[in-house]
Amino acid sequence: MLRNPFEYSARVRYADTDQMGVVYHARYLEWFESARTEMLRYAGFPYRNLEEQGFFLPVIEAHCRYRLPVHYDEVVNIRTQMEEINRLKIRLKYRLFIEGHPALRAEGWTLHCFTDKGGKPVRAPQELIDVLKARLSEQIDL
Amino acid sequence: MLRNPFEYSARVRYADTDQMGVVYHARYLEWFESARTEMLRYAGFPYRNLEEQGFFLPVIEAHCRYRLPVHYDEVVNIRTQMEEINRLKIRLKYRLFIEGHPALRAEGWTLHCFTDKGGKPVRAPQELIDVLKARLSEQIDL
Amino acid sequence: MLRNPFEYSARVRYADTDQMGVVYHARYLEWFESARTEMLRYAGFPYRNLEEQGFFLPVIEAHCRYRLPVHYDEVVNIRTQMEEINRLKIRLKYRLFIEGHPALRAEGWTLHCFTDKGGKPVRAPQELIDVLKARLSEQIDL
Amino acid sequence: MLRNPFEYSARVRYADTDQMGVVYHARYLEWFESARTEMLRYAGFPYRNLEEQGFFLPVIEAHCRYRLPVHYDEVVNIRTQMEEINRLKIRLKYRLFIEGHPALRAEGWTLHCFTDKGGKPVRAPQELIDVLKARLSEQIDL
Repeated sequence: MLRNPFEYSARVRYADTDQMGVVYHARYLEWFESARTEMLRYAGFPYRNLEEQGFFLPVIEAHCRYRLPVHYDEVVNIRTQMEEINRLKIRLKYRLFIEGHPALRAEGWTLHCFTDKGGKPVRAPQELIDVLKARLSEQIDL
Repeated sequence: MLRNPFEYSARVRYADTDQMGVVYHARYLEWFESARTEMLRYAGFPYRNLEEQGFFLPVIEAHCRYRLPVHYDEVVNIRTQMEEINRLKIRLKYRLFIEGHPALRAEGWTLHCFTDKGGKPVRAPQELIDVLKARLSEQIDL
Repeated sequence: MLRNPFEYSARVRYADTDQMGVVYHARYLEWFESARTEMLRYAGFPYRNLEEQGFFLPVIEAHCRYRLPVHYDEVVNIRTQMEEINRLKIRLKYRLFIEGHPALRAEGWTLHCFTDKGGKPVRAPQELIDVLKARLSEQIDL
Repeated sequence: MLRNPFEYSARVRYADTDQMGVVYHARYLEWFESARTEMLRYAGFPYRNLEEQGFFLPVIEAHCRYRLPVHYDEVVNIRTQMEEINRLKIRLKYRLFIEGHPALRAEGWTLHCFTDKGGKPVRAPQELIDVLKARLSEQIDL
């Protein structure tokens, strides 16, 4: 499979925390969105362009396991990996770390299908899939 | 002017709080959205229907003054009043209380203009304005 | 297992939607929060009181499968069921419908463990577990 | 007055948009939060450290005027300026642009008072105010 963890970083805002003094669990899905968006941009396919070409990638399943809390003002590093890709769907895997700490804080995945603007499932062109695979297949050591 | 405070209530969620143990300040604008939406519904003009007829009411200015904090699980009551209405714009005023406590927690206002779907300013039909005014002009004691 | 689906309703706000014209996927986790909070209140254990007694229930795993989109101003009904409960953890299952439509829109689950205020795992008192089980075990037809 | 516009940039996420196809108005207040946080960090006073020393800066008033819409995937540049600072309160002003476009998209301000952890108003040490003033008073041309 593709093994290229792409790293995206974000600073925890007050807006992300809750009264337990940690990041509210739903915010992780927003980080995953930014992480995959930047990975697609890095691969040469800004998601905005995909939409302009008529291909949408709504989330059809999402999962997150919260292992250790994340706190205000910490910098989260999210390593995203393409786990599965074909003309119908894409599965991405995320691992979340805090800058300067080796412990895994959270891990998750999202499943997306290709649809048209109206939400109808479509097949993405094979060329698109091939290029995405190629661009994301180089191993990076993280 | 119109003097009909319409009351909308919501329960504070964990999602609304931040690590100071109070509601995060940006969430108040979301409550104001729900408050004006329910006021329009009560007046017989669900905002969704306005949009279906081609009239949008984007926020062009928003203000909030935070007087006393609001905490998790409290029930907020928002009293909304139409302050100004004409074919070009609408100004709404909000006062926020906690159920069972007389002290004003926050107050704010939003200014909206009528636009078409593309965001171009338009004039709303005079009939719409007249009916809204009439329906929201009965005094309610709160 | 316990089979009491508790129903919680919420109106979709503009704040919940994204530019695809549907509810943004992370918002579902916020609805699940409200749904379980109201279920605990209905069972006689407001979550706020649990925290005051020193018992916290952070989310340690969350999952959601999005089957059909949800739109602005629709009323979502979330049916929550206790799937598993013991002194260490609680698993809840959620099914999401739109008022007036029989089709399942989304389904998900969350796993929680009992911790103290500092986040350290603790065992909840057996009496608490027994009473929760008893109060949530009556079958309701929905 | 202090005239040092500090620039903070952020990418618009799907999470920030609403079904009008533009950024939801409450999100601007979250950007303002990041903008002032990074300005304080740049001035040598990470907000986290202020809190650790017992000084909190809750928002007591917020204002935003939305001039032109902001869209998905655009990069917003927020120029923050200290407008007023004394031992009791701080007023910040924000102007929001889109990278590569000269037109002002939005402008706003927030007012903050110094409080202790419990939310009680306090006076910040004069040295802190003097250093903040000095560090933020160099003019930058933007």
